[in-house]
Amino acid sequence: MEKLSDTERIDDLQRGGFRIIQDSRLFRFGTDAVLLTHFARIRKGDRIVDLGSGNGVIPLLLCSLYDDISITGIELMQKNAELFRRNVVLNNVSDRIKVIEDDIKNVPSLFAPGETEAVITNPPYMKCEGALKNESPERAAARHEIYIDLDGIISAASYLLKFGGRFFMVHRPERLAEIFVLMKKHSIEPKRLRFVQSSAEKEPSMILVEGAKGGKEGLKIMPVFIIHDKSGELTEEYKKIYYG
Amino acid sequence: MEKLSDTERIDDLQRGGFRIIQDSRLFRFGTDAVLLTHFARIRKGDRIVDLGSGNGVIPLLLCSLYDDISITGIELMQKNAELFRRNVVLNNVSDRIKVIEDDIKNVPSLFAPGETEAVITNPPYMKCEGALKNESPERAAARHEIYIDLDGIISAASYLLKFGGRFFMVHRPERLAEIFVLMKKHSIEPKRLRFVQSSAEKEPSMILVEGAKGGKEGLKIMPVFIIHDKSGELTEEYKKIYYG
Repeated sequence: MEKLSDTERIDDLQRGGFRIIQDSRLFRFGTDAVLLTHFARIRKGDRIVDLGSGNGVIPLLLCSLYDDISITGIELMQKNAELFRRNVVLNNVSDRIKVIEDDIKNVPSLFAPGETEAVITNPPYMKCEGALKNESPERAAARHEIYIDLDGIISAASYLLKFGGRFFMVHRPERLAEIFVLMKKHSIEPKRLRFVQSSAEKEPSMILVEGAKGGKEGLKIMPVFIIHDKSGELTEEYKKIYYG
Repeated sequence: MEKLSDTERIDDLQRGGFRIIQDSRLFRFGTDAVLLTHFARIRKGDRIVDLGSGNGVIPLLLCSLYDDISITGIELMQKNAELFRRNVVLNNVSDRIKVIEDDIKNVPSLFAPGETEAVITNPPYMKCEGALKNESPERAAARHEIYIDLDGIISAASYLLKFGGRFFMVHRPERLAEIFVLMKKHSIEPKRLRFVQSSAEKEPSMILVEGAKGGKEGLKIMPVFIIHDKSGELTEEYKKIYYG
Protein backbone atom coordinates (compact mmCIF):
# COMPACT_ATOMS: atom_id res chain seq x y z
CA MET A 1 0.00 0.00 0.00
CA GLU A 2 1.31 3.39 -1.07
CA LYS A 3 2.01 5.66 1.89
CA LEU A 4 0.37 9.06 1.51
CA SER A 5 1.07 12.33 3.30
CA ASP A 6 -1.75 14.47 4.72
CA THR A 7 -2.08 16.56 1.57
CA GLU A 8 -1.98 13.62 -0.82
CA ARG A 9 -4.72 11.48 -2.23
CA ILE A 10 -5.01 8.79 -4.87
CA ASP A 11 -7.45 9.46 -7.72
CA ASP A 12 -8.76 6.94 -10.20
CA LEU A 13 -7.91 7.97 -13.78
CA GLN A 14 -11.12 6.17 -14.87
CA ARG A 15 -9.26 4.17 -17.43
CA GLY A 16 -7.90 0.63 -17.18
CA GLY A 17 -7.41 0.88 -13.44
CA PHE A 18 -4.82 3.64 -13.71
CA ARG A 19 -4.49 5.72 -10.59
CA ILE A 20 -2.64 8.89 -9.73
CA ILE A 21 -1.27 10.28 -6.49
CA GLN A 22 -1.96 14.00 -6.31
CA ASP A 23 -0.81 16.51 -3.76
CA SER A 24 -3.12 19.43 -3.00
CA ARG A 25 -0.07 21.66 -2.39
CA LEU A 26 1.19 21.01 -5.90
CA PHE A 27 -0.56 21.30 -9.24
CA ARG A 28 -3.34 18.82 -9.87
CA PHE A 29 -4.36 17.75 -13.34
CA GLY A 30 -7.51 18.96 -15.02
CA THR A 31 -9.62 18.65 -18.12
CA ASP A 32 -6.72 20.07 -20.14
CA ALA A 33 -4.58 16.96 -19.77
CA VAL A 34 -7.48 14.61 -20.45
CA LEU A 35 -8.57 16.41 -23.61
CA LEU A 36 -4.98 16.74 -24.82
CA THR A 37 -4.22 13.02 -24.53
CA HIS A 38 -7.38 12.21 -26.47
CA PHE A 39 -6.64 14.84 -29.10
CA ALA A 40 -3.12 13.48 -29.67
CA ARG A 41 -2.74 11.00 -32.50
CA ILE A 42 -0.31 8.39 -31.21
CA ARG A 43 0.87 5.48 -33.33
CA LYS A 44 2.10 2.05 -32.42
CA GLY A 45 5.74 2.10 -31.38
CA ASP A 46 5.90 5.88 -30.96
CA ARG A 47 8.67 7.30 -28.83
CA ILE A 48 7.04 10.22 -27.03
CA VAL A 49 8.43 13.04 -24.93
CA ASP A 50 6.20 14.97 -22.50
CA LEU A 51 7.62 18.41 -21.76
CA GLY A 52 6.84 19.51 -18.20
CA SER A 53 5.14 16.44 -16.78
CA GLY A 54 4.12 17.62 -13.30
CA ASN A 55 2.91 14.54 -11.43
CA GLY A 56 2.94 12.56 -14.68
CA VAL A 57 -0.73 12.64 -15.61
CA ILE A 58 -0.12 12.87 -19.37
CA PRO A 59 2.30 9.92 -19.55
CA LEU A 60 -0.07 7.89 -17.35
CA LEU A 61 -3.11 8.73 -19.46
CA LEU A 62 -1.21 7.88 -22.65
CA CYS A 63 -0.17 4.54 -21.14
CA SER A 64 -3.80 3.86 -20.28
CA LEU A 65 -4.77 4.52 -23.91
CA TYR A 66 -1.90 2.87 -25.79
CA ASP A 67 0.15 -0.26 -25.06
CA ASP A 68 3.06 -0.19 -27.43
CA ILE A 69 4.60 3.20 -26.75
CA SER A 70 7.47 4.59 -24.69
CA ILE A 71 7.27 7.95 -22.99
CA THR A 72 9.90 10.11 -21.39
CA GLY A 73 8.59 12.83 -19.12
CA ILE A 74 10.74 15.80 -18.15
CA GLU A 75 9.97 17.63 -14.96
CA LEU A 76 12.09 20.28 -13.30
CA MET A 77 10.44 20.69 -9.90
CA GLN A 78 11.81 18.16 -7.47
CA LYS A 79 8.55 17.57 -5.55
CA ASN A 80 6.64 16.99 -8.79
CA ALA A 81 9.29 14.63 -10.17
CA GLU A 82 9.17 12.62 -6.94
CA LEU A 83 5.40 12.25 -7.18
CA PHE A 84 5.76 11.40 -10.87
CA ARG A 85 8.22 8.56 -10.02
CA ARG A 86 5.86 7.23 -7.34
CA ASN A 87 2.99 7.32 -9.85
CA VAL A 88 5.03 5.29 -12.34
CA VAL A 89 5.70 2.67 -9.66
CA LEU A 90 2.09 2.72 -8.42
CA ASN A 91 0.82 1.92 -11.91
CA ASN A 92 3.61 -0.53 -12.68
CA VAL A 93 4.60 1.19 -15.92
CA SER A 94 8.34 1.73 -15.40
CA ASP A 95 8.92 -0.27 -18.59
CA ARG A 96 7.02 2.36 -20.58
CA ILE A 97 7.58 5.63 -18.73
CA LYS A 98 10.95 7.16 -17.96
CA VAL A 99 11.17 10.17 -15.62
CA ILE A 100 13.87 12.78 -16.13
CA GLU A 101 14.19 15.40 -13.42
CA ASP A 102 15.76 18.23 -15.34
CA ASP A 103 15.21 21.54 -17.09
CA ILE A 104 13.54 21.55 -20.54
CA LYS A 105 16.31 23.93 -21.55
CA ASN A 106 18.73 21.01 -21.24
CA VAL A 107 16.88 18.88 -23.81
CA PRO A 108 19.75 19.14 -26.36
CA SER A 109 22.17 17.59 -23.86
CA LEU A 110 19.69 14.92 -22.73
CA PHE A 111 18.46 13.62 -26.09
CA ALA A 112 19.77 13.01 -29.59
CA PRO A 113 18.09 15.28 -32.15
CA GLY A 114 15.20 14.03 -34.27
CA GLU A 115 14.65 10.69 -32.55
CA THR A 116 11.14 11.33 -31.26
CA GLU A 117 7.88 10.58 -33.09
CA ALA A 118 5.69 12.74 -30.87
CA VAL A 119 6.10 15.54 -28.36
CA ILE A 120 3.22 16.42 -26.06
CA THR A 121 2.93 19.30 -23.61
CA ASN A 122 0.54 21.06 -21.28
CA PRO A 123 2.74 24.08 -20.65
CA PRO A 124 2.24 27.04 -18.31
CA TYR A 125 -0.41 29.24 -19.93
CA MET A 126 0.55 32.60 -18.54
CA LYS A 127 3.48 34.90 -19.04
CA CYS A 128 5.90 35.37 -16.22
CA GLU A 129 4.82 38.77 -14.95
CA GLY A 130 1.47 37.76 -13.43
CA ALA A 131 2.75 35.10 -11.00
CA LEU A 132 1.30 35.38 -7.51
CA LYS A 133 3.68 35.73 -4.61
CA ASN A 134 1.72 33.38 -2.37
CA GLU A 135 1.59 30.44 -4.76
CA SER A 136 3.75 27.40 -4.08
CA PRO A 137 6.78 27.26 -6.42
CA GLU A 138 5.33 24.16 -8.12
CA ARG A 139 1.94 25.75 -8.77
CA ALA A 140 3.54 28.99 -9.95
CA ALA A 141 5.83 27.05 -12.33
CA ALA A 142 2.87 25.13 -13.73
CA ARG A 143 0.85 28.28 -14.37
CA HIS A 144 3.46 30.86 -15.35
CA GLU A 145 6.40 30.90 -17.73
CA ILE A 146 8.92 31.24 -14.91
CA TYR A 147 11.46 28.58 -15.88
CA ILE A 148 10.66 28.31 -19.56
CA ASP A 149 8.51 30.20 -22.04
CA LEU A 150 6.60 29.07 -25.11
CA ASP A 151 9.57 29.77 -27.36
CA GLY A 152 11.76 27.50 -25.22
CA ILE A 153 9.18 24.70 -25.15
CA ILE A 154 8.55 24.74 -28.89
CA SER A 155 12.27 24.99 -29.57
CA ALA A 156 12.85 21.85 -27.44
CA ALA A 157 10.00 20.06 -29.24
CA SER A 158 11.48 20.91 -32.62
CA TYR A 159 14.89 19.59 -31.55
CA LEU A 160 13.36 16.32 -30.39
CA LEU A 161 11.05 15.64 -33.33
CA LYS A 162 12.08 13.73 -36.38
CA PHE A 163 10.97 15.00 -39.78
CA GLY A 164 7.19 14.53 -39.93
CA GLY A 165 7.03 14.01 -36.16
CA ARG A 166 3.97 15.40 -34.40
CA PHE A 167 3.64 18.06 -31.74
CA PHE A 168 0.55 18.19 -29.49
CA MET A 169 -0.19 21.04 -27.13
CA VAL A 170 -3.07 22.42 -25.10
CA HIS A 171 -3.11 26.16 -24.48
CA ARG A 172 -5.27 29.28 -24.21
CA PRO A 173 -7.05 30.86 -27.20
CA GLU A 174 -5.69 34.34 -26.52
CA ARG A 175 -2.18 33.08 -27.28
CA LEU A 176 -3.05 31.38 -30.58
CA ALA A 177 -1.32 33.93 -32.81
CA GLU A 178 1.91 33.71 -30.83
CA ILE A 179 1.71 29.91 -30.82
CA PHE A 180 1.48 29.74 -34.60
CA VAL A 181 4.33 32.21 -35.04
CA LEU A 182 6.60 30.23 -32.70
CA MET A 183 5.67 26.88 -34.22
CA LYS A 184 6.53 28.16 -37.68
CA LYS A 185 9.72 29.76 -36.35
CA HIS A 186 10.81 26.32 -35.15
CA SER A 187 9.70 24.46 -38.31
CA ILE A 188 6.63 22.88 -36.74
CA GLU A 189 3.79 23.56 -39.15
CA PRO A 190 0.34 23.95 -37.55
CA LYS A 191 -1.81 21.16 -39.04
CA ARG A 192 -4.85 20.70 -36.81
CA LEU A 193 -6.66 22.96 -34.37
CA ARG A 194 -9.58 22.36 -32.07
CA PHE A 195 -11.29 24.85 -29.82
CA VAL A 196 -12.86 23.75 -26.55
CA GLN A 197 -15.92 25.59 -25.26
CA SER A 198 -17.72 25.10 -21.98
CA SER A 199 -21.02 25.42 -23.88
CA ALA A 200 -22.16 26.24 -27.42
CA GLU A 201 -22.71 29.93 -26.66
CA LYS A 202 -19.49 30.55 -24.77
CA GLU A 203 -16.23 31.72 -26.22
CA PRO A 204 -13.54 29.03 -26.36
CA SER A 205 -11.54 28.53 -23.18
CA MET A 206 -8.92 26.16 -24.52
CA ILE A 207 -7.21 25.19 -27.75
CA LEU A 208 -5.76 21.89 -28.82
CA VAL A 209 -3.13 22.17 -31.52
CA GLU A 210 -1.22 19.66 -33.60
CA GLY A 211 1.85 20.47 -35.65
CA ALA A 212 4.14 18.49 -37.93
CA LYS A 213 7.89 18.97 -37.97
CA GLY A 214 8.77 20.17 -41.47
CA GLY A 215 5.13 19.78 -42.57
CA LYS A 216 3.49 21.57 -45.48
CA GLU A 217 1.24 24.58 -44.91
CA GLY A 218 -2.47 23.90 -44.48
CA LEU A 219 -4.42 23.97 -41.24
CA LYS A 220 -7.46 21.83 -40.51
CA ILE A 221 -9.87 23.30 -38.00
CA MET A 222 -12.02 20.69 -36.29
CA PRO A 223 -15.56 21.26 -35.07
CA VAL A 224 -15.61 22.86 -31.62
CA PHE A 225 -15.41 20.50 -28.65
CA ILE A 226 -18.32 21.37 -26.38
CA ILE A 227 -18.29 20.26 -22.75
CA HIS A 228 -21.85 21.05 -21.60
CA ASP A 229 -25.04 20.80 -23.66
CA LYS A 230 -27.95 23.24 -23.51
CA SER A 231 -29.39 21.68 -20.36
CA GLY A 232 -26.03 21.92 -18.57
CA GLU A 233 -25.31 18.19 -18.82
CA LEU A 234 -21.94 16.90 -19.99
CA THR A 235 -22.02 16.21 -23.73
CA GLU A 236 -21.75 12.65 -25.03
CA GLU A 237 -18.35 13.40 -26.56
CA TYR A 238 -17.03 14.62 -23.25
CA LYS A 239 -18.46 11.72 -21.27
CA LYS A 240 -16.97 9.28 -23.74
CA ILE A 241 -13.52 10.77 -23.30
CA TYR A 242 -13.71 11.25 -19.56
CA TYR A 243 -15.28 7.99 -18.55
CA GLY A 244 -14.23 5.80 -21.49
CA MET B 1 -31.19 54.60 -66.41
CA GLU B 2 -27.86 52.74 -66.25
CA LYS B 3 -27.06 50.96 -69.50
CA LEU B 4 -26.17 47.32 -68.98
CA SER B 5 -24.38 44.88 -71.26
CA ASP B 6 -25.72 41.35 -71.87
CA THR B 7 -23.66 39.84 -69.05
CA GLU B 8 -24.47 42.54 -66.52
CA ARG B 9 -27.26 42.85 -64.04
CA ILE B 10 -28.13 45.16 -61.17
CA ASP B 11 -28.59 43.54 -57.76
CA ASP B 12 -30.18 45.11 -54.72
CA LEU B 13 -27.72 45.17 -51.78
CA GLN B 14 -30.77 44.89 -49.46
CA ARG B 15 -29.68 47.88 -47.48
CA GLY B 16 -30.80 51.50 -47.77
CA GLY B 17 -31.57 51.15 -51.45
CA PHE B 18 -27.96 50.45 -52.40
CA ARG B 19 -27.58 48.60 -55.66
CA ILE B 20 -24.66 47.01 -57.46
CA ILE B 21 -23.94 46.32 -61.11
CA GLN B 22 -22.37 42.89 -61.45
CA ASP B 23 -20.93 41.23 -64.51
CA SER B 24 -21.22 37.46 -64.77
CA ARG B 25 -17.90 37.34 -66.63
CA LEU B 26 -16.13 38.99 -63.70
CA PHE B 27 -16.13 38.12 -60.02
CA ARG B 28 -19.41 38.57 -58.21
CA PHE B 29 -19.61 39.27 -54.52
CA GLY B 30 -20.65 36.66 -52.02
CA THR B 31 -21.33 36.03 -48.37
CA ASP B 32 -17.68 36.78 -47.64
CA ALA B 33 -18.00 40.50 -48.36
CA VAL B 34 -21.27 40.78 -46.48
CA LEU B 35 -19.96 39.06 -43.35
CA LEU B 36 -16.71 41.01 -43.48
CA THR B 37 -18.38 44.42 -43.59
CA HIS B 38 -20.54 43.47 -40.60
CA PHE B 39 -17.57 42.07 -38.70
CA ALA B 40 -15.56 45.26 -39.22
CA ARG B 41 -15.74 47.81 -36.43
CA ILE B 42 -15.89 51.17 -38.16
CA ARG B 43 -15.98 54.45 -36.26
CA LYS B 44 -17.37 57.84 -37.13
CA GLY B 45 -15.00 59.78 -39.35
CA ASP B 46 -12.83 56.77 -40.22
CA ARG B 47 -10.68 56.98 -43.31
CA ILE B 48 -10.81 53.48 -44.76
CA VAL B 49 -8.87 51.77 -47.52
CA ASP B 50 -10.23 48.65 -49.25
CA LEU B 51 -7.45 46.59 -50.81
CA GLY B 52 -8.61 44.86 -54.00
CA SER B 53 -12.13 46.19 -54.39
CA GLY B 54 -13.39 44.26 -57.43
CA ASN B 55 -16.70 45.84 -58.42
CA GLY B 56 -16.73 47.83 -55.16
CA VAL B 57 -19.07 45.74 -53.05
CA ILE B 58 -17.20 46.33 -49.77
CA PRO B 59 -17.05 50.14 -50.09
CA LEU B 60 -20.73 50.16 -51.11
CA LEU B 61 -21.79 47.97 -48.20
CA LEU B 62 -19.78 50.11 -45.78
CA CYS B 63 -21.47 53.23 -47.16
CA SER B 64 -24.83 51.59 -46.64
CA LEU B 65 -23.92 50.90 -43.00
CA TYR B 66 -22.12 54.12 -42.04
CA ASP B 67 -22.66 57.74 -43.07
CA ASP B 68 -19.67 59.63 -41.85
CA ILE B 69 -16.77 57.71 -43.41
CA SER B 70 -14.55 58.02 -46.45
CA ILE B 71 -13.34 54.99 -48.36
CA THR B 72 -10.69 54.58 -50.98
CA GLY B 73 -10.87 51.37 -52.98
CA ILE B 74 -7.88 50.12 -54.94
CA GLU B 75 -8.47 47.82 -57.87
CA LEU B 76 -5.94 46.73 -60.44
CA MET B 77 -8.08 45.06 -63.09
CA GLN B 78 -9.35 47.63 -65.56
CA LYS B 79 -12.76 45.99 -66.15
CA ASN B 80 -13.41 45.73 -62.43
CA ALA B 81 -12.34 49.32 -61.77
CA GLU B 82 -14.69 50.50 -64.51
CA LEU B 83 -17.62 48.64 -62.95
CA PHE B 84 -16.59 49.96 -59.52
CA ARG B 85 -16.69 53.57 -60.84
CA ARG B 86 -20.14 52.98 -62.38
CA ASN B 87 -21.35 51.54 -59.08
CA VAL B 88 -20.17 54.64 -57.23
CA VAL B 89 -22.09 56.84 -59.64
CA LEU B 90 -25.15 54.57 -59.60
CA ASN B 91 -25.37 54.89 -55.80
CA ASN B 92 -24.48 58.55 -55.75
CA VAL B 93 -21.64 58.11 -53.27
CA SER B 94 -18.75 59.77 -55.09
CA ASP B 95 -18.39 62.09 -52.09
CA ARG B 96 -17.57 59.10 -49.86
CA ILE B 97 -15.90 56.56 -52.17
CA LYS B 98 -12.79 57.18 -54.21
CA VAL B 99 -11.67 54.62 -56.80
CA ILE B 100 -8.00 54.13 -57.55
CA GLU B 101 -7.16 51.90 -60.49
CA ASP B 102 -3.70 50.73 -59.54
CA ASP B 103 -1.60 47.94 -58.10
CA ILE B 104 -1.67 47.36 -54.33
CA LYS B 105 2.13 47.14 -54.60
CA ASN B 106 2.11 50.88 -55.38
CA VAL B 107 0.39 51.82 -52.11
CA PRO B 108 3.54 53.56 -50.75
CA SER B 109 3.59 55.91 -53.72
CA LEU B 110 -0.18 56.51 -53.62
CA PHE B 111 -0.71 57.23 -49.90
CA ALA B 112 1.10 58.88 -47.03
CA PRO B 113 2.05 56.35 -44.33
CA GLY B 114 -0.09 55.91 -41.23
CA GLU B 115 -3.01 58.12 -42.25
CA THR B 116 -5.69 55.42 -42.34
CA GLU B 117 -7.91 54.36 -39.44
CA ALA B 118 -9.06 51.08 -41.00
CA VAL B 119 -7.99 48.78 -43.82
CA ILE B 120 -10.39 46.14 -45.08
CA THR B 121 -9.79 43.39 -47.60
CA ASN B 122 -11.32 40.30 -49.16
CA PRO B 123 -8.17 39.06 -50.86
CA PRO B 124 -7.63 36.12 -53.20
CA TYR B 125 -7.78 32.99 -51.03
CA MET B 126 -5.59 30.69 -53.03
CA LYS B 127 -1.93 30.59 -53.83
CA CYS B 128 -0.82 31.29 -57.34
CA GLU B 129 -0.11 27.79 -58.54
CA GLY B 130 -3.71 26.50 -58.69
CA ALA B 131 -5.12 29.10 -61.10
CA LEU B 132 -7.22 27.62 -63.88
CA LYS B 133 -6.24 28.38 -67.45
CA ASN B 134 -9.83 28.90 -68.60
CA GLU B 135 -10.79 31.47 -65.98
CA SER B 136 -11.16 35.11 -67.01
CA PRO B 137 -8.20 37.24 -65.85
CA GLU B 138 -10.48 39.09 -63.43
CA ARG B 139 -11.85 35.93 -61.83
CA ALA B 140 -8.40 34.37 -61.65
CA ALA B 141 -7.00 37.52 -59.98
CA ALA B 142 -9.84 37.53 -57.44
CA ARG B 143 -9.29 33.88 -56.53
CA HIS B 144 -5.53 33.41 -56.79
CA GLU B 145 -2.52 35.36 -55.60
CA ILE B 146 -1.41 36.22 -59.12
CA TYR B 147 -0.74 39.94 -58.78
CA ILE B 148 -0.23 40.12 -55.04
CA ASP B 149 0.12 37.63 -52.20
CA LEU B 150 -0.90 37.78 -48.56
CA ASP B 151 2.47 39.19 -47.55
CA GLY B 152 2.05 42.04 -50.02
CA ILE B 153 -1.49 42.81 -48.90
CA ILE B 154 -0.67 42.83 -45.21
CA SER B 155 2.47 44.86 -45.86
CA ALA B 156 0.36 47.48 -47.68
CA ALA B 157 -2.18 47.48 -44.84
CA SER B 158 0.56 48.04 -42.29
CA TYR B 159 1.96 50.95 -44.28
CA LEU B 160 -1.46 52.58 -44.49
CA LEU B 161 -2.58 52.13 -40.88
CA LYS B 162 -1.88 54.61 -38.16
CA PHE B 163 -0.80 53.32 -34.76
CA GLY B 164 -3.82 51.54 -33.28
CA GLY B 165 -5.53 51.44 -36.68
CA ARG B 166 -7.59 48.34 -37.44
CA PHE B 167 -7.19 45.71 -40.12
CA PHE B 168 -10.18 43.56 -41.17
CA MET B 169 -9.89 40.57 -43.45
CA VAL B 170 -11.92 37.55 -44.53
CA HIS B 171 -10.00 34.43 -45.52
CA ARG B 172 -9.89 30.64 -45.40
CA PRO B 173 -9.28 28.66 -42.17
CA GLU B 174 -6.48 26.57 -43.67
CA ARG B 175 -4.34 29.69 -44.01
CA LEU B 176 -4.84 30.95 -40.45
CA ALA B 177 -1.32 30.14 -39.23
CA GLU B 178 0.26 31.95 -42.17
CA ILE B 179 -2.08 34.91 -41.68
CA PHE B 180 -1.06 35.34 -38.05
CA VAL B 181 2.63 35.06 -38.89
CA LEU B 182 2.37 37.70 -41.61
CA MET B 183 0.26 40.04 -39.50
CA LYS B 184 2.83 39.90 -36.72
CA LYS B 185 5.66 40.31 -39.22
CA HIS B 186 4.06 43.57 -40.32
CA SER B 187 3.23 44.79 -36.78
CA ILE B 188 -0.50 44.12 -37.02
CA GLU B 189 -1.39 42.19 -33.88
CA PRO B 190 -4.27 39.70 -34.25
CA LYS B 191 -6.96 40.87 -31.81
CA ARG B 192 -10.24 39.23 -32.80
CA LEU B 193 -11.11 36.09 -34.72
CA ARG B 194 -14.40 34.61 -35.79
CA PHE B 195 -15.01 31.36 -37.60
CA VAL B 196 -17.92 30.99 -39.99
CA GLN B 197 -19.56 27.58 -40.37
CA SER B 198 -22.29 26.57 -42.77
CA SER B 199 -23.91 24.61 -39.92
CA ALA B 200 -23.08 23.68 -36.31
CA GLU B 201 -21.60 20.30 -37.28
CA LYS B 202 -19.50 21.46 -40.21
CA GLU B 203 -15.90 22.56 -40.07
CA PRO B 204 -15.43 26.29 -40.55
CA SER B 205 -15.32 27.51 -44.15
CA MET B 206 -14.29 31.08 -43.51
CA ILE B 207 -12.48 33.22 -40.96
CA LEU B 208 -12.95 36.86 -40.07
CA VAL B 209 -9.92 38.44 -38.49
CA GLU B 210 -9.24 41.81 -36.92
CA GLY B 211 -5.79 43.17 -36.12
CA ALA B 212 -4.49 46.35 -34.56
CA LYS B 213 -1.39 48.14 -35.86
CA GLY B 214 1.14 48.07 -33.03
CA GLY B 215 -1.40 46.41 -30.72
CA LYS B 216 -0.59 44.34 -27.65
CA GLU B 217 -0.71 40.54 -27.75
CA GLY B 218 -4.01 38.91 -26.82
CA LEU B 219 -6.52 37.35 -29.18
CA LYS B 220 -10.26 37.24 -28.59
CA ILE B 221 -12.06 34.38 -30.28
CA MET B 222 -15.73 35.04 -30.84
CA PRO B 223 -18.45 32.38 -30.83
CA VAL B 224 -18.73 30.69 -34.21
CA PHE B 225 -20.97 32.37 -36.79
CA ILE B 226 -23.39 29.73 -38.03
CA ILE B 227 -25.25 30.24 -41.30
CA HIS B 228 -27.83 27.43 -41.25
CA ASP B 229 -29.64 26.01 -38.23
CA LYS B 230 -30.45 22.33 -37.68
CA SER B 231 -33.49 22.42 -39.95
CA GLY B 232 -31.45 23.96 -42.77
CA GLU B 233 -32.99 27.43 -42.37
CA LEU B 234 -30.84 30.54 -42.26
CA THR B 235 -30.03 31.46 -38.66
CA GLU B 236 -31.44 34.64 -37.14
CA GLU B 237 -27.97 36.17 -36.94
CA TYR B 238 -27.40 35.58 -40.62
CA LYS B 239 -30.82 36.88 -41.65
CA LYS B 240 -30.28 40.00 -39.56
CA ILE B 241 -27.03 40.72 -41.34
CA TYR B 242 -28.16 39.82 -44.81
CA TYR B 243 -31.56 41.43 -44.86
CA GLY B 244 -31.04 44.15 -42.25
